[in-house]
Amino acid sequence: MIKHSSGDFARLPFTVTVTRGNMVESRHQVIAAISDANGKYLKSWGDIESPVYLRSAIKPLQALQLVETGAADAFNVSEKELSLACASHTGEPLHVDAVQAWLSRMGLSIDDLECGVHWPTYEVAGRALAAAGKQPTSAHNNCSGKHTGFLTTALHMKEGTKGYINLAHPVQQRIIKVLEDFTGIDLTDAPIGIDGCSIPTIGVPLDKAALAFARFADPSRLDTDRAAACRRIQKAISHHPDMIAGSDRLCTALNGVAKGKVVAKVGAEAVYLAALPDEGLGIAIKALDGTTRAAEVALGALLDDLGVLTDDMHKVIDPYVRPVLRNRNDIIVGHLQAVISDETST
Amino acid sequence: MIKHSSGDFARLPFTVTVTRGNMVESRHQVIAAISDANGKYLKSWGDIESPVYLRSAIKPLQALQLVETGAADAFNVSEKELSLACASHTGEPLHVDAVQAWLSRMGLSIDDLECGVHWPTYEVAGRALAAAGKQPTSAHNNCSGKHTGFLTTALHMKEGTKGYINLAHPVQQRIIKVLEDFTGIDLTDAPIGIDGCSIPTIGVPLDKAALAFARFADPSRLDTDRAAACRRIQKAISHHPDMIAGSDRLCTALNGVAKGKVVAKVGAEAVYLAALPDEGLGIAIKALDGTTRAAEVALGALLDDLGVLTDDMHKVIDPYVRPVLRNRNDIIVGHLQAVISDETST
Repeated sequence: MIKHSSGDFARLPFTVTVTRGNMVESRHQVIAAISDANGKYLKSWGDIESPVYLRSAIKPLQALQLVETGAADAFNVSEKELSLACASHTGEPLHVDAVQAWLSRMGLSIDDLECGVHWPTYEVAGRALAAAGKQPTSAHNNCSGKHTGFLTTALHMKEGTKGYINLAHPVQQRIIKVLEDFTGIDLTDAPIGIDGCSIPTIGVPLDKAALAFARFADPSRLDTDRAAACRRIQKAISHHPDMIAGSDRLCTALNGVAKGKVVAKVGAEAVYLAALPDEGLGIAIKALDGTTRAAEVALGALLDDLGVLTDDMHKVIDPYVRPVLRNRNDIIVGHLQAVISDETST
Repeated sequence: MIKHSSGDFARLPFTVTVTRGNMVESRHQVIAAISDANGKYLKSWGDIESPVYLRSAIKPLQALQLVETGAADAFNVSEKELSLACASHTGEPLHVDAVQAWLSRMGLSIDDLECGVHWPTYEVAGRALAAAGKQPTSAHNNCSGKHTGFLTTALHMKEGTKGYINLAHPVQQRIIKVLEDFTGIDLTDAPIGIDGCSIPTIGVPLDKAALAFARFADPSRLDTDRAAACRRIQKAISHHPDMIAGSDRLCTALNGVAKGKVVAKVGAEAVYLAALPDEGLGIAIKALDGTTRAAEVALGALLDDLGVLTDDMHKVIDPYVRPVLRNRNDIIVGHLQAVISDETST
């Protein structure tokens, strides 16, 4: 138990409240930024210069090299597979089968995946697997699509596939280069950790993450090939939202119904990044306590604030972004709500 | 999206940090109080007068009526069943079988349980159930033991078992009376919500929750029968820690290894209540964001601070109270830690 002075992180004007009956039962603090591709911040909440591990939210940019190296074309990577390369999927058969087929086409197998094994994050799929007397493989890992993309790139670049998860491997070095390009900052001394799937995860100031996704949303100032790669990845996610996540997931619901107007990706520990191609804006969100429910509600509130959400979109995503709490008898017992006290224009 | 002024809740000196690599990735704010049975607060952190839904953490006091009405003796409720009546269990066969046997002995069945159905909270048990081609019943509900206790009391008191979950039913009214007795406050206008298992949950100021558990820990000033009932429930939990929760759960680990020196119970949305019978103290903890991992780490830190934990206890509970984060390849990638900046003596 360390005793030290409390930081300033606590004084923040964006919360998500969890109400049960006539009382707020729990509350989450959120930091968030909305940027354009020039680094102009439309709005922000909290200490947005804090470094944040972007975790899986950054997968669309991690997948850029799959297109930019020519690997995707060389191995006939389909649009569906490109979406899967950006996915934190639920381990349902459509994901697992697609990963296995893709690996097989490259002469590889699940033994080449270095992401580790876990049961499907969609519990229904996990129980179905168990009911079939099966065990999960690394193809069920929510990151297996991304890792298959990494293997594809490493194979195409003749870099060796073993150890592609390590910081020193060209696959990971290219990710850092892309991050530096999109954030405009030197990440040499950035905080670094190991992600759930064993690749490095880099701490990026939240404002720069918003800028990165704004540049991804509006790549018009980037070179032509990179701009085309950004647009190709956006389309892949929008056209194949079932591959980016799966059943009962906001990423699948939102990317599907938004039809390209929003391209969003969740990351572990309550990160959400979203690109708004029509507006040329990027959104970066972190709930400080790492609780995904808060990041989802916050994303809905910011999209709403920007006037992006139509009635049709609301209908599809409100179960995630304006959720009610139902108990074990399916009685509505509460709800979650975004509470923004003081927007900061920077 | 409501816009209003931010409250003071954010300025608190007790946090639990989640560190990954060389950076704090997420952090939780905790409020906590340690009281004796006279309502003297040894230490507290944050706004402990805030009402908190105690959820399942209050189950040991909810179970008092089972003993006090004579129902437990009339229906030969075993010590194991009494622990189960205080449980948020994992839905493993030992729990489900015990609930069914108890119901059956009273001439009742799972159809009399009004808690609702959910898959076992211990996913391994859920997958085993699925692999056996079965579906969960209300006996798998983590609260089924408590509900069986309610049914036992209602049956014994000839109050009718239907609707025992409703506020107006004598079972629920007795719970409120017990809460008022132990907290010493009038709960008529207290915040009220519906719990996951459909019974009312009452908002109790956190300091009074600590007082209630101090009185439970040291019932020497209560009347003889009530004191005996408190001690009987403490013993049941300590002697049968496997019934109070289940595999991979702090409540089972801690109540087992503490051998009566700590009687602790978790509640949903990050509540922990603990009784220290030897010291005559009660501890009440709420992580404001509702994340259980934070409440567990906070409980360990407070028990440590009080000098209650032996090396043997640490060995058993440290995986919960001083957890490391392991990724999908079982690599240690981070850890959780309690950070107490400024203890308040009140």
